Amino acid sequence: MSIVQNGVNIDQLVATINAIKDDPTLAQFRFRATNEWVNGGHSRTKIQSFYGAEDAKRSQPFTFEGDEPPVLLGSNAGPNAVEAVLHALASCLAVGFVYNAAAQGIRVDSLEFELEGDIDLHGFLGLSDQVRPGYQNIRLSYRVKSDAPRQKLEELCEYVQKTSPVLDIIRNPVPVSIALVDELLPIAGEME
Amino acid sequence: MSIVQNGVNIDQLVATINAIKDDPTLAQFRFRATNEWVNGGHSRTKIQSFYGAEDAKRSQPFTFEGDEPPVLLGSNAGPNAVEAVLHALASCLAVGFVYNAAAQGIRVDSLEFELEGDIDLHGFLGLSDQVRPGYQNIRLSYRVKSDAPRQKLEELCEYVQKTSPVLDIIRNPVPVSIALVDELLPIAGEME
Repeated sequence: MSIVQNGVNIDQLVATINAIKDDPTLAQFRFRATNEWVNGGHSRTKIQSFYGAEDAKRSQPFTFEGDEPPVLLGSNAGPNAVEAVLHALASCLAVGFVYNAAAQGIRVDSLEFELEGDIDLHGFLGLSDQVRPGYQNIRLSYRVKSDAPRQKLEELCEYVQKTSPVLDIIRNPVPVSIALVDELLPIAGEME
Repeated sequence: MSIVQNGVNIDQLVATINAIKDDPTLAQFRFRATNEWVNGGHSRTKIQSFYGAEDAKRSQPFTFEGDEPPVLLGSNAGPNAVEAVLHALASCLAVGFVYNAAAQGIRVDSLEFELEGDIDLHGFLGLSDQVRPGYQNIRLSYRVKSDAPRQKLEELCEYVQKTSPVLDIIRNPVPVSIALVDELLPIAGEME
């Protein structure tokens, strides 16, 4: 029998942390994606393999469609890229909140996020180099149902913010290298 | 008859740019998402409405699942949050490349991206405050088939990097405000 809180296996969580304490190299992960343009604003991302301790082989890739709405010259085949950023942020904070709540013995009954971000298209459209192309700001509200006192939930949220990978990626600079290549390297069998 | 290049309606592109030149407020967009935790590492994002000129009513929300693989205590119900960041980046560069190619009269026959990013889990797991939780770096390769000369494609890629919303979000800081609330505000009918 394992102790499970909020759907998180606490025994496995503790074992994972102890394994990394014993061998810090186990904490090194590399995540991957490939994307193929379809038409117009529509492209398709496949996500399958990653490098990390005990890589859990996914038998099929996950697929995310990206596109623009008609007002931005697309065909609505999927949410656009900056909407996908909001998804990444919310799903990251959800994991962080629920895992850390589980580790602290806090039961979470429900957890919801609402996000919005402002963009001035002068940047993307190249109409001004004074306007950044990305979000000028993002606002996020969350609501949680739990029997824990509100102060404990606030403290948990503070901690989650400090350790959230996607929040860090958005709030702080990440170096990105980009290269035009003649041939893509096959990565873990994902590219045909 | 409209001129269409790479699936992009050039007449509409020019009309959009002219409309924004006439009325800069048309460039102000606000994108939105809601996310609901399901269980363990699994949460579900819905993306539907946005604020912007001529909001093209999507009749249904797009849904993205987020989860962790078993090695990270999840159930593989979807890619994880940092994998979703790679999707957002690729789909953004795809749109930027194809739209700007169309505007310049460059035919794109195919376009593919390959991305990877390195993360040290000491940050996310709270095992070190010396290690950032997010990506330490992201590497992206792209391959394009086009009859345009390579130098023109390189120049296009440089321009796309300067104007890519998601690349800007990742490379540069974005302010994010986060609030615990008692009730989420209904946004555009998305929250029941």
